[in-house]
Amino acid sequence: MLIMGIDPGIAISGYGLVNNKNYKNTVIEYGVLRTNSGISMPKRLEYIFNGYMELIRKYSPEAIAVEELFFNKNAKTIITVGQARGAALLAASLMNIEVFEYTPLQVKQAVVGYGRAEKIQIQEMTRILLNLKELPKPDDAADALAVALCHINSFRLQSVINNNGERS
Amino acid sequence: MLIMGIDPGIAISGYGLVNNKNYKNTVIEYGVLRTNSGISMPKRLEYIFNGYMELIRKYSPEAIAVEELFFNKNAKTIITVGQARGAALLAASLMNIEVFEYTPLQVKQAVVGYGRAEKIQIQEMTRILLNLKELPKPDDAADALAVALCHINSFRLQSVINNNGERS
Repeated sequence: MLIMGIDPGIAISGYGLVNNKNYKNTVIEYGVLRTNSGISMPKRLEYIFNGYMELIRKYSPEAIAVEELFFNKNAKTIITVGQARGAALLAASLMNIEVFEYTPLQVKQAVVGYGRAEKIQIQEMTRILLNLKELPKPDDAADALAVALCHINSFRLQSVINNNGERS
Repeated sequence: MLIMGIDPGIAISGYGLVNNKNYKNTVIEYGVLRTNSGISMPKRLEYIFNGYMELIRKYSPEAIAVEELFFNKNAKTIITVGQARGAALLAASLMNIEVFEYTPLQVKQAVVGYGRAEKIQIQEMTRILLNLKELPKPDDAADALAVALCHINSFRLQSVINNNGERS
């Protein structure tokens, strides 16, 4: 099961591809798409959209996982992140990839097992769970990997529940 | 000069096409795209994106005008409007249509000549300026027509300024 985690933003959009096979997670790729503030908003959205489209075409992930937004930012930030997020979700929809959303709490619990974990704890656990030598950088790529892991863990848990349900 | 005003939202996205020729404005079409809350967010964005793409293909507007968002809404609303807006701006960018953004103040001043105008005054002036017998309905379509008018007026004013500049 190949999952792409994404963390869309207007200046920097993270992505992380994690393959899960026989209970083992392997990082296939991670990175960021950057757009320059000197170009127009529609062109920045086009660049983000095209970037995610290319990644989907290249890797054909089974699902895309995205974190629900924190709302502790100012309205101007929320609207631009929302626009970038729209471009990413649209790419997923046009390529018929199912999108799963997770709250920050769900990501923390899935990755660290503790809902009030600090950012650095999430990153360190992501590194360990993915057998990486170094912390994934930048933060946006690390966040994308964490939400991919969250989906894998939630999905596996859900399938265990479903299987048990069938047997009973 | 054919201008498409848009007022994107997740449940209801307005559009209004206004042609300006020899100082006369003619409404070519206006209406809304509706999406159902029962379907997934990515599919709703795809529907909005496809809707605006179709309108652009059908009418080939010279430019698209969009109002900057009010920030007096809650964060959840802002993010979903942002996502819908992203889908609309992306359609414009992919079709190489230039996008112009106007603040609510600019729209009010351009249409009513008064920055603190009420919504009903804007709609009534939009109706008069566009020679429509009835108020355009729903509000989202009326707002889209108003921002198209705002662009036409701003653009005409700008071209007068530029021409005077060249002569001097």
